[in-house]
Amino acid sequence: MSRYFSPRFAALEPYTPGEQPQSLERYVKLNTNECPFPPSEKARAYAEAHTRPLNLYPDPDCRALRVKLAETLEIAPEELMLCNGSDEALAFAFLAFCDGKTAAAFPEITYGFYPVFAALCSVEYQEVPLRADFSVAPEDYFGLGRTIFIANPNAPTGKLLSVAEIETILQRNPDNVVVIDEAYIDFGGTSCIPLIRSYENLLVTQTFSKSRALAGGRLGFAVGCPALIADLNAIRCSFNPYNVNSLTTAAAMGTLLDSDYTRRCCETVMENRTYTAAELKRRGFHVLESAANFLFAAAPDYDGGALYRALKEKGVLVRHFDKPAIAQYNRISIGTREQMDALLRALDEILQEAGQG
Amino acid sequence: MSRYFSPRFAALEPYTPGEQPQSLERYVKLNTNECPFPPSEKARAYAEAHTRPLNLYPDPDCRALRVKLAETLEIAPEELMLCNGSDEALAFAFLAFCDGKTAAAFPEITYGFYPVFAALCSVEYQEVPLRADFSVAPEDYFGLGRTIFIANPNAPTGKLLSVAEIETILQRNPDNVVVIDEAYIDFGGTSCIPLIRSYENLLVTQTFSKSRALAGGRLGFAVGCPALIADLNAIRCSFNPYNVNSLTTAAAMGTLLDSDYTRRCCETVMENRTYTAAELKRRGFHVLESAANFLFAAAPDYDGGALYRALKEKGVLVRHFDKPAIAQYNRISIGTREQMDALLRALDEILQEAGQG
Repeated sequence: MSRYFSPRFAALEPYTPGEQPQSLERYVKLNTNECPFPPSEKARAYAEAHTRPLNLYPDPDCRALRVKLAETLEIAPEELMLCNGSDEALAFAFLAFCDGKTAAAFPEITYGFYPVFAALCSVEYQEVPLRADFSVAPEDYFGLGRTIFIANPNAPTGKLLSVAEIETILQRNPDNVVVIDEAYIDFGGTSCIPLIRSYENLLVTQTFSKSRALAGGRLGFAVGCPALIADLNAIRCSFNPYNVNSLTTAAAMGTLLDSDYTRRCCETVMENRTYTAAELKRRGFHVLESAANFLFAAAPDYDGGALYRALKEKGVLVRHFDKPAIAQYNRISIGTREQMDALLRALDEILQEAGQG
Repeated sequence: MSRYFSPRFAALEPYTPGEQPQSLERYVKLNTNECPFPPSEKARAYAEAHTRPLNLYPDPDCRALRVKLAETLEIAPEELMLCNGSDEALAFAFLAFCDGKTAAAFPEITYGFYPVFAALCSVEYQEVPLRADFSVAPEDYFGLGRTIFIANPNAPTGKLLSVAEIETILQRNPDNVVVIDEAYIDFGGTSCIPLIRSYENLLVTQTFSKSRALAGGRLGFAVGCPALIADLNAIRCSFNPYNVNSLTTAAAMGTLLDSDYTRRCCETVMENRTYTAAELKRRGFHVLESAANFLFAAAPDYDGGALYRALKEKGVLVRHFDKPAIAQYNRISIGTREQMDALLRALDEILQEAGQG
């Protein structure tokens, strides 16, 4: 830290993303919930066709893509903002809807970036405990008088709230924005996007990084009533109006035109999730019911952090979080069947070595 | 604006970028200072070769590109941060180095985004008048006790400060960060990047959008001593650690490996600038000496705003700013020789019609 750094950031602890190893060949990478399949051929072809005019700025309104995505989501273009990954949408939401008077609230165990955004924006926050089974209790969010952030399905648990449960939170917080972070909604959940017509306090974020296989392109979006989206655009255009690049815009257009491919990828991921959950349970793991493209699982008689390290040693990367309440667990991204079998083989070796030890 | 929008943004006026017309064919586009030539073949080939692994997140440290760019700039990788356009670097610098105690200062006539960043960060700012000839007076920035932002060459004037002049500003502000925004430095100026080893208060920003022909890719960077760069990274990783996408990273690597192409593009732009300035002067225009890829020029006996509109009517887009002190001028990006001749033909028609009117 330099002596010029604003003292208000003295205690800022940046978010630590999952490792992105430089030599991908060395690892079965199941640590950042990416899609295990490449983008659709159409996405690639669209991006490749758009490298020539890269000397020109993108359209800061992303008009063509916004119209197409809005059509896909059955909303109006004015109900949609595109951004540089959904993290950017979440950062803008913290800026726009939280301040010294309106603090934030989110589950105690959830996406680890929420407290970082709050710290960056100098916003006080309340961490709401989960139920004993790691589910979010909607009633705990009634009338908090705060801007609420809920990942649904939640991370790293994978647990899902129903649309009806989310609706109760919206109804009981008419004077506060409720942000539903649907990064993982396409793996078995039902989006609450249709509720934006009924609730002016609902903001939904989604991403092209998971189900849509474009994590490398950086594209996310926020959906809400036109007034909320106008607020976010005021922040976006005061921060970085050209926030989405042209190649990603093209790749995303190709992706939307190949929705069958996206659907098939998600179906395969869900099949592999069912298979992996059963195999883990067969080995005595405690596995949470997941509606996401990952499983949150605790080994029998094996420390969570030690298991993470043993798997890494064997070339399988998963994600471990130090927080005491979940330190026994590891978050395992769902990859191809071959990747999941590699994980299971590595686990068998580790547990066998431990049994002999 | 929704009723949920934080009242601290009630007066926020987002930056208005130059128009990005949807039908490019209709216009000779000389309004946003893009490179008139496509990216190098190598840049395109690199981007096209990287569409397949787009399902994976980028390296949040952009290690390979950062090492290569640092080598090109003759600095260490730790003295460099990459970001989603240099606007993002500037936004991070306002966040990191300005606050309620340390306000900002910049020229009264400069890049119109600086006051917007200040407003977004709730930072008070001082606008320092230019000299009568539109040049920045270094002595006006001595000992201001503020974080200083200077575009060099300045926009929209194109006027350049020497490295020695910038050094005086650095020397006289040891307790404050001085940000030199070198978006246009490659068109005849000398970068002050070598000064970062002598001045721990110097931060330099540059972009791939102008001389490097990648405006559509969104890539900028900041250069400074490792402590300043660490501050910016703390902000970046608390806001959006995956801020640079993989395709742009690849295109930028290709661009750096084809530096001859970039040099030739810049040389052609400078030749076309010399040609256009002479032609404008021959028509009685007042043209400021420019070290950038644009000219700032006032027509004889013709209102600046009216000329902008008349040119647009004839299919030539330039940029006009309403600020009274410069309302007589238009900023004309330097394009290909053919584009500049189209501009001159349109001007001749307009001035002739006016003479007959």
